[in-house]
Amino acid sequence: MFEITKSDLAGRTGVLHTNHGSVQTPAYVPVIHPARQTIPSERIRKMGFEMVITNAYITRKRFGDEATRRGIHEIINFNGAVMTDSGGYQVLEYGDVEVLPPEMAAFERGIMTDFGIPLDKPTGFGMPKKTAAQYVRHTLEVSRQTLQAAEDNGQIWIGPIQGGEHFDLVSKSAKGLVDAGFTMMALGSPVEFMESYEYGLLARMIITAKRQIPHSIPLHLFGAGHPLTIPLAVALGCDTFDSASYILYAKNQRYMTGDGTRYLKDISVFPCGCEVCSRYTPAELRQLAETERTDELAVHNLHAIKLEVDMTRQAIHEGRLWEYVMKKSRAHPRLYEIIRIMTGNGDFLAEGTPRFKDRAAFLYDRADQFRPEVQRYHEMVRRFKSKKKTLVIMPETDSRPGYLSGRYAHLAKKFGDSAQICQYSPHLGLVPIEISDIYPAAHHETARNRFEPAEFVEFGTTWKKFFENNSFEEMYYDKKDRFLEYFAKGTRDIKKKNLNKK
Amino acid sequence: MFEITKSDLAGRTGVLHTNHGSVQTPAYVPVIHPARQTIPSERIRKMGFEMVITNAYITRKRFGDEATRRGIHEIINFNGAVMTDSGGYQVLEYGDVEVLPPEMAAFERGIMTDFGIPLDKPTGFGMPKKTAAQYVRHTLEVSRQTLQAAEDNGQIWIGPIQGGEHFDLVSKSAKGLVDAGFTMMALGSPVEFMESYEYGLLARMIITAKRQIPHSIPLHLFGAGHPLTIPLAVALGCDTFDSASYILYAKNQRYMTGDGTRYLKDISVFPCGCEVCSRYTPAELRQLAETERTDELAVHNLHAIKLEVDMTRQAIHEGRLWEYVMKKSRAHPRLYEIIRIMTGNGDFLAEGTPRFKDRAAFLYDRADQFRPEVQRYHEMVRRFKSKKKTLVIMPETDSRPGYLSGRYAHLAKKFGDSAQICQYSPHLGLVPIEISDIYPAAHHETARNRFEPAEFVEFGTTWKKFFENNSFEEMYYDKKDRFLEYFAKGTRDIKKKNLNKK
Repeated sequence: MFEITKSDLAGRTGVLHTNHGSVQTPAYVPVIHPARQTIPSERIRKMGFEMVITNAYITRKRFGDEATRRGIHEIINFNGAVMTDSGGYQVLEYGDVEVLPPEMAAFERGIMTDFGIPLDKPTGFGMPKKTAAQYVRHTLEVSRQTLQAAEDNGQIWIGPIQGGEHFDLVSKSAKGLVDAGFTMMALGSPVEFMESYEYGLLARMIITAKRQIPHSIPLHLFGAGHPLTIPLAVALGCDTFDSASYILYAKNQRYMTGDGTRYLKDISVFPCGCEVCSRYTPAELRQLAETERTDELAVHNLHAIKLEVDMTRQAIHEGRLWEYVMKKSRAHPRLYEIIRIMTGNGDFLAEGTPRFKDRAAFLYDRADQFRPEVQRYHEMVRRFKSKKKTLVIMPETDSRPGYLSGRYAHLAKKFGDSAQICQYSPHLGLVPIEISDIYPAAHHETARNRFEPAEFVEFGTTWKKFFENNSFEEMYYDKKDRFLEYFAKGTRDIKKKNLNKK
Repeated sequence: MFEITKSDLAGRTGVLHTNHGSVQTPAYVPVIHPARQTIPSERIRKMGFEMVITNAYITRKRFGDEATRRGIHEIINFNGAVMTDSGGYQVLEYGDVEVLPPEMAAFERGIMTDFGIPLDKPTGFGMPKKTAAQYVRHTLEVSRQTLQAAEDNGQIWIGPIQGGEHFDLVSKSAKGLVDAGFTMMALGSPVEFMESYEYGLLARMIITAKRQIPHSIPLHLFGAGHPLTIPLAVALGCDTFDSASYILYAKNQRYMTGDGTRYLKDISVFPCGCEVCSRYTPAELRQLAETERTDELAVHNLHAIKLEVDMTRQAIHEGRLWEYVMKKSRAHPRLYEIIRIMTGNGDFLAEGTPRFKDRAAFLYDRADQFRPEVQRYHEMVRRFKSKKKTLVIMPETDSRPGYLSGRYAHLAKKFGDSAQICQYSPHLGLVPIEISDIYPAAHHETARNRFEPAEFVEFGTTWKKFFENNSFEEMYYDKKDRFLEYFAKGTRDIKKKNLNKK
């Protein structure tokens, strides 16, 4: 049902196979109103969206049995995959709804949805833990029953993970749904996280859930459809995400960009090449009648979201998702805070990161010592054994692998077989010449900046391990190299000689 | 002739008024071949490019007197502003050309170009300094004569600055042309700077030239038309820039993106919403016949360049050009190196930066202590005088200006009139409560990260000055605040009291 084509960090590109065609992931899933949709769903399909989400609860209320006769695809006029939310949000907003979970499941089955969601009880944000725990238990129970009653007809049932800011509940909820046998999951992202720009909380919630979910199971994220959150959500392993933001923002005259949202009145030139932005200047769009202006803005917003998804997909394809997310995080100081979460969850991000990439890793600042490829190199060097008694350390050379450099040839000749020769890079740490051809040692680009040794704690750890694991009696290095000197001064019981003086 | 509408850093948005319509700047100026143009110039006009550049030398060779009869606008079929290069590049490539500077100037005048360039001798890159100095002298002499012979007919003559990597020659060349009376200038950007990704050299060369040129004079940058260089060039004060990159890259199957250039074969999904990328999938585009594919790629490349210019224009409009350039610099480690140049030329970047902005300044890392708005605040605090003997320092509050915060009200009540109360921020330094409403103290967003005090040298300087300028006898602060403690421990002759203990 879900086929992964490529992965990077915890993100992946893939294909979801459904009863109504396949869906390339990651995918944004626009919300379609079953009765009051202003942007025609055919137009949304033509823009390249292969899946939409609509509300089964409202559909049932509005269309009743007619919906079962005609099917949801005809009701909303969408030729592609349809996901139906079951009314859980209405539970959150208006308290209990007058339909029981098994009835709703039967209705979703009847309208031939491609992705059904059991009638869950969303925990939202700010709910006392005890109540949230009850909601999680209830949702889990309903979900189990729904799945047990499901027919083997190609419909995909999604397990709704709840828990909000109570991360232990999120974890329990995710694990329970996996155990119940769901082949796709969805995570509730409290609208409060987004409204208060708490991207750090959102990131930690996603990681908590993902740590309980096997790699092969696709994850949907509810209510996330802003260009700012998309690369982050994808990097952490979300495959699809829905929201009505495109139209809600448009109604407030808000224009989405990859750098955040702007009011239409504040735009002097459209920083976008989509059909809407090519047809109008900002002044012209402002002069349209309100309905038309809102629709055009909504179409632009859909394009802006799609562009962000496509840029993220291409970043996965190229193996530079880390770089893309780091760059993107500079759109807002709150988003920048997620760097701490990225650097602190290396093990989680490593799983989907390929061991070898065609493309050079671009290394900028201290955060990059924590990217999975670099961490892996450190781990390898921390296990490296040498029988030599003499250690020679030189900076990395422009020719790579290092053993192809003239500088290495010169030192190899000078020291013969008696010395262990290493190159070094602030990010990668020590690079024993024998393994200087392993990715990313042989294939990276580093900014030629002055790096502060104190910031490179991974270098320090590798350095310490390297000396512990081996029995060097003397080391040669350039004592004027202040980066090396910082680490060398803490290393005792070894004769230190100046490389340039020999 | 040049009207500046808004400015930020050394960049500005403006309008160039010409004999053939006005040109919104910053503007990319596509190169049009006078005889072998494959993308029709009307199509380029329709895409929104208001000015193109073509080669007067080739036009003269190919069309001779016909060009003078018909005019360059008809020859290249462009309804907008036209700039003509005079053959200087041909001088560089093929040695001397068989036309004298006055003849070329007369020809450019005759074909009714909007922007003429005297027949200069480009210095390129790697030329011995002595020869380069001769070239600069020759170009200056030719330019002076051309300008003196010019008619007052609305044509704009551009002074070509040369010097390459010899920055003192660049400076002399720019100054000479300003003194000669040019109202627009152009700077030769050695193709070698770009090919070897030496963005730092490019930035230093632009700054060197700009320091000699009055703010009111527009500056064109030759041969720069890549999405990676555009925000940087604009931020340093370039108003227009030309290149043939859109078609040259297309011929090599290279697809431009805001994150760099990709081979068409390496793209899985187009990270772009332009007309070309909406019409084809990458696989479909790859299957087109070569000529058609090259043309479509060239059109996409034009869109990608235009998008970058528009995003940069909008960033100036919003007053967040610093943030945009910093974010953009993460597209390549060599581009990231320009941060050193941005932080080291605060005085130069401050000139065009407004004192007050509507939008909050977003502060991320150590580099942001050097942005002009922040530097200005430091300068103000370094001149701040207080008659109080007691100093109270608290972290900045969420409510701003700080004097509106509950925390301030509490301390003001506790200490009464006897104390000078300050807030602090790692980036802004000390914020005396009396001036906590001045931009950007009242209007910024900072990532809630753990900042290393050693990185905040501007904080240290302001701290030192603040104590030198005033005669505090005691200071209250939270001694557990490790950021403050780092600076307080170096401050002697003052009683230090714990704020939380009082």
